[in-house]
Amino acid sequence: MGTAYAGFQRQPEVMTVQQVLEEAVATVTGEQTRVLGSGRTDAGAHALGQVVAFDTSSSLSPQVLQRALNAHLPADIAVLDCEESSAEFHPRYDAVSRVYRYVFWNGSTRAPWWEGRAARVREKLDEVRMQEAALYLIGRHHFGAFVASAVSGSREREIFAARCWRDGDLVTLELEGSGFMKQMVRAIAGTLARVGAGRMTPDDFRAVLAGRDRRRAAGTAPAHGLYLVRVNYGPSSGACLSKE
Amino acid sequence: MGTAYAGFQRQPEVMTVQQVLEEAVATVTGEQTRVLGSGRTDAGAHALGQVVAFDTSSSLSPQVLQRALNAHLPADIAVLDCEESSAEFHPRYDAVSRVYRYVFWNGSTRAPWWEGRAARVREKLDEVRMQEAALYLIGRHHFGAFVASAVSGSREREIFAARCWRDGDLVTLELEGSGFMKQMVRAIAGTLARVGAGRMTPDDFRAVLAGRDRRRAAGTAPAHGLYLVRVNYGPSSGACLSKE
Repeated sequence: MGTAYAGFQRQPEVMTVQQVLEEAVATVTGEQTRVLGSGRTDAGAHALGQVVAFDTSSSLSPQVLQRALNAHLPADIAVLDCEESSAEFHPRYDAVSRVYRYVFWNGSTRAPWWEGRAARVREKLDEVRMQEAALYLIGRHHFGAFVASAVSGSREREIFAARCWRDGDLVTLELEGSGFMKQMVRAIAGTLARVGAGRMTPDDFRAVLAGRDRRRAAGTAPAHGLYLVRVNYGPSSGACLSKE
Repeated sequence: MGTAYAGFQRQPEVMTVQQVLEEAVATVTGEQTRVLGSGRTDAGAHALGQVVAFDTSSSLSPQVLQRALNAHLPADIAVLDCEESSAEFHPRYDAVSRVYRYVFWNGSTRAPWWEGRAARVREKLDEVRMQEAALYLIGRHHFGAFVASAVSGSREREIFAARCWRDGDLVTLELEGSGFMKQMVRAIAGTLARVGAGRMTPDDFRAVLAGRDRRRAAGTAPAHGLYLVRVNYGPSSGACLSKE
């Protein structure tokens, strides 16, 4: 659960998941080491399947290391699996795809159960329209419409899958892609919510994507609805998994 | 979510759900009033369907009252429904049954998602054995085996239904009964977990129930796995629902 953290990446003055993991590794192995993640996460967002890696000369087995790390990690972070990887493995550069979810609470009242875990939208969302619009994301596109202007480098990314479904009062968007830029999933989610609420058509959404202009898309949906679900690698990798 | 509260019932020096509701009613209606609940809940336990009632001379409609209360309640308490009841309605005395759940996290690692929302049991639970044992609870029994010795009055209660099931790494016990004494569900859950772990047979469980001796049952399972799911009334009642 990412509620208590300023994202994954170590920063001065605030608590991040990377820092907490590095401190747990230092406590268990006695070694100061850098814990590499598969990518940054936003402050307040969650990770069900973050993948991290670190070097250690510890002789502890992965199973013992996992138990020891879990004994020293706070309740909102857990190592779900732990295995030895090749020395060259890099959780960020070796990833072939990432799966993110954005979860909307679309009930008629507030939901204490989903507080901090889903973003409330009061207008009734039509998830079929949202799915129809989301399909336009699939393929290789310039995602200038959905990234902050401060992002540097290429804005081309490939989306492999885009699904949107309702389960009772929850509406979930799931995207699998080669990579996602800062706030990209949240900007897509905010714009698809507008489609779901009937204030934009799926065709309008396609035009926003094609326009590559951030000002034409809707606002960025809040971080607490965002989940990093899974990171996929080629067949030979392996890594420790932590759950924020 | 009951995590932040010392149960439902007003107590000096600690924050309870009753107190928070009464303050919200006072803010909205300008009236100091007593908010009656369907029963106490334990500190740290949760309520998905608590039923409360209060008197008011406010002319606000139930729908407006609900919205106004939700605007003043903290994020972990919500009024899910609100309607006018007869003046005689009492959420506790008019209840014909209550449904409680006890949720165990039975995965191989800690689960940040379920932190404070399910009680972890490390031994693999056999939910079929637990269901078999739980069936002995159905009917009218003396529940001396599952209540704290300090409870006064009759220890007879009737259990109408007892179900136990697994959903992935979660094992849930659901009990519907005429009423439950202090810590009764948690003592039953603790003892059924022992059955599930293979350290007691369903027949042993029946003997514990028949023995009416608290010392023969297992320890009380922690409060954070306990949920008040629903309170059932006769056909003519109505009440505000709050979600702790």
